[in-house]
Amino acid sequence: MSYFDAASSAPLHPVARQALQASLDEGWADPARLYREGRRARLLLDAAREAAADAVGCRPDELVFTSSGTRAVHSGIAGALAGRRRVGRHLVVSAVEHSSVLHSAAAHAADGGSVTEAEVVRSGAVDPAVFAAALRTDTALACLQSANHEVGTEQPVAEVAAACREAGVPLLVDAAQSLGWGPVDAPWSLLAASAHKWGGPAGVGLLAVRKGVRFATQGPADERESGRAAGFENIPAIVAAAASLRAVRAEAAAESLRLRGLVDRIRERVAASVPDVEVVGDPVRRMPHLVTFSCLYVDGETLLHELDRAGFSVSSGSSCTSSTLTPSHVLKAMGVLSEGNVRVSLPVGALEADVERFLEVLPGAVEGVRKQLGAPATGASGSGGTEDLVVDALGKLCPIPVIELAKVIGDVPVGGVVTVLADDEAARLDIPAWCDMRSQEYVGAHPVGGGTAYRVRRLN
Amino acid sequence: MSYFDAASSAPLHPVARQALQASLDEGWADPARLYREGRRARLLLDAAREAAADAVGCRPDELVFTSSGTRAVHSGIAGALAGRRRVGRHLVVSAVEHSSVLHSAAAHAADGGSVTEAEVVRSGAVDPAVFAAALRTDTALACLQSANHEVGTEQPVAEVAAACREAGVPLLVDAAQSLGWGPVDAPWSLLAASAHKWGGPAGVGLLAVRKGVRFATQGPADERESGRAAGFENIPAIVAAAASLRAVRAEAAAESLRLRGLVDRIRERVAASVPDVEVVGDPVRRMPHLVTFSCLYVDGETLLHELDRAGFSVSSGSSCTSSTLTPSHVLKAMGVLSEGNVRVSLPVGALEADVERFLEVLPGAVEGVRKQLGAPATGASGSGGTEDLVVDALGKLCPIPVIELAKVIGDVPVGGVVTVLADDEAARLDIPAWCDMRSQEYVGAHPVGGGTAYRVRRLN
Repeated sequence: MSYFDAASSAPLHPVARQALQASLDEGWADPARLYREGRRARLLLDAAREAAADAVGCRPDELVFTSSGTRAVHSGIAGALAGRRRVGRHLVVSAVEHSSVLHSAAAHAADGGSVTEAEVVRSGAVDPAVFAAALRTDTALACLQSANHEVGTEQPVAEVAAACREAGVPLLVDAAQSLGWGPVDAPWSLLAASAHKWGGPAGVGLLAVRKGVRFATQGPADERESGRAAGFENIPAIVAAAASLRAVRAEAAAESLRLRGLVDRIRERVAASVPDVEVVGDPVRRMPHLVTFSCLYVDGETLLHELDRAGFSVSSGSSCTSSTLTPSHVLKAMGVLSEGNVRVSLPVGALEADVERFLEVLPGAVEGVRKQLGAPATGASGSGGTEDLVVDALGKLCPIPVIELAKVIGDVPVGGVVTVLADDEAARLDIPAWCDMRSQEYVGAHPVGGGTAYRVRRLN
Repeated sequence: MSYFDAASSAPLHPVARQALQASLDEGWADPARLYREGRRARLLLDAAREAAADAVGCRPDELVFTSSGTRAVHSGIAGALAGRRRVGRHLVVSAVEHSSVLHSAAAHAADGGSVTEAEVVRSGAVDPAVFAAALRTDTALACLQSANHEVGTEQPVAEVAAACREAGVPLLVDAAQSLGWGPVDAPWSLLAASAHKWGGPAGVGLLAVRKGVRFATQGPADERESGRAAGFENIPAIVAAAASLRAVRAEAAAESLRLRGLVDRIRERVAASVPDVEVVGDPVRRMPHLVTFSCLYVDGETLLHELDRAGFSVSSGSSCTSSTLTPSHVLKAMGVLSEGNVRVSLPVGALEADVERFLEVLPGAVEGVRKQLGAPATGASGSGGTEDLVVDALGKLCPIPVIELAKVIGDVPVGGVVTVLADDEAARLDIPAWCDMRSQEYVGAHPVGGGTAYRVRRLN
């Protein structure tokens, strides 16, 4: 079994396992107690905080451990917004943040705050000028990830941090995807991260708040972790998290180079060996270990199932795999194809041979899914007959609406229009993306009874 | 070293350790993913949920795992209050709840809600009639612990639950101290607990919400744990928590009998061998493993330090050990002596020999602290001279004000009054308690410049 979903969760690093087991005996007591077991636990906690702060690039008293990266983000955003409530209640986030950031933003909006989502370009990166333009005199906080979790694109954090500093707005950086690879090299105000992304155990996040940043912890009071993270400290896991962060950092330079090469290979070979595929995300300014591509006429969930059967664990931002039936907000914001989406994120130590095997298996797996769905042959184009056509794909899930479109486009003459009726949200993204890929003209969309009519003009 | 502070945190149970180690390899992946590692993690999580629900006495779909007992309490109270906001914003809690409950209540009050604290009797138990009388038509939620964490007294949960049911008010039971010993035998609506109290790892709490109880999770949305506990699940720790709950339950009947005997012995021997001691909490309706006593003329922190040097780890609810310099709210609500307070809570497997050694060491340790502080000899009483006396103990920390009082009470004639000026909050509790213990009359208190004047009439 090849596990290629490190961006979801990394297997426990051997150093984390050792540290966890070693500290189970020393770290279970209450570090606030004055007796021997408490003092021992306190020593472990202090040492872990120093190590983590060193890796983050902050002072130990600026860093607290939370119960997860999600909690770090929730608490960081809520505390920073409350701390600057007098300035205003405006929040800026990028459109491609992790759901924990966007859900915090939604909670803020529901509570009467205002939120601006800074759009991204097709690579998934924010434009620093666009982000800077969203900052206002009443902006309490801005949030930008260090790198995107779905497509791997690095964000221009240094430029955005400079703009935030200029505007006097604190910047919270969600460094969940990148902290194992290196510190965030920018003057951030708050930083959040999650240990199980770098091979630490689950149950540990970290939140750093620079001295001088106004911060007012929300929720019921609690004396733990400087009052910023309620609940009894999970010291063995914290110790393991700090130890594995050190360990992955020690390997980061060499391993990132190695994985970057493997990902370059995947980017090239997928584009070359899988027809009708779009490899998304910035090919250069990106995380070393992560690549995402979308396959036309493919149902992401079925493809993941096929790959799982072949021994590969990958994830997908396709709507088809999500319980909510809306496509990934990241792919949507980028304006790229969402159907048949596959994210490959290599864990530290991933083997070249497994990557090679994946590249051998993938084209056949995609072809198999397309056959099951009755997708049209690649590039097939009829001679054209009827003037205009309407395809009713109401009630059909992605990628069926696009498949139906592709099947009939050859039935209209060049200049003719196909109208696709669909109610799956993914069609809004995937029909324009198909037009791009096929050099057909996307005319537009308008609501019809029970769904949307998408109009496409045949150009070739 | 004898660790007698299980009520703070229990050492990891051997079964928890085994389960944790075994599930580190199987439980690190995202249980929401469809690939093999995700399915394995999901299986572990589901099995742990079934085991925990069985031990709690609820359906698996009524139970979620949180990152701590504190989080379970915070989320449970916030969600239940929000779920019944239409009914009203009144909350009833007992005066001796854990700080996580009282802090939630304070946050609710700060947000415009109203809170009633139901008083307790001297044993630390609520009177069900008093609790029932606090319920109103606009009461959204009531909270009662199953047993008190500082003095071990069991609460009349069944009677209170019946009264809540009668009034149509949901009852949240904080079962943190008792769940390892057995299920809460009462019709609760919500239940919270913490795994590290029963020998599970830190980082795992549980929150059960009965079907039909109105509940609206607060804070940013998150799809994990039925939307009730944000953040990536810590599955190895959850598995270990569930396994150790089963394990301690299997031993509970025999072990509770054994520890109950040891605690009875401590209650008797402490009362007999330490002069001027008050053993607090209900002697019968109590947790099997926990006993608390307060020693007149003793500084709790110094005593804990002496006991630690002698190899015993115990805790204290005395103001002297707390950074806030206010005595334990529990002892205060009970109206018992708070100075020189010691809580002994025996872990599962505590050795009789260690308890014996503790009982041998304790009287000398108490005597030593009293000598250091210049406490009066036990029961010493002068012949009486001056009519009335004023003792200035402003700026002196507990137990000094009481020591000063005891030193001079013999200097006034029977019927004479000693006025103690003090600004340590503990004096408000400890001077009346001393009067009780010494059969002197506590006349009352009134504010004076910079503190309070406590008036005591000599009766003997």
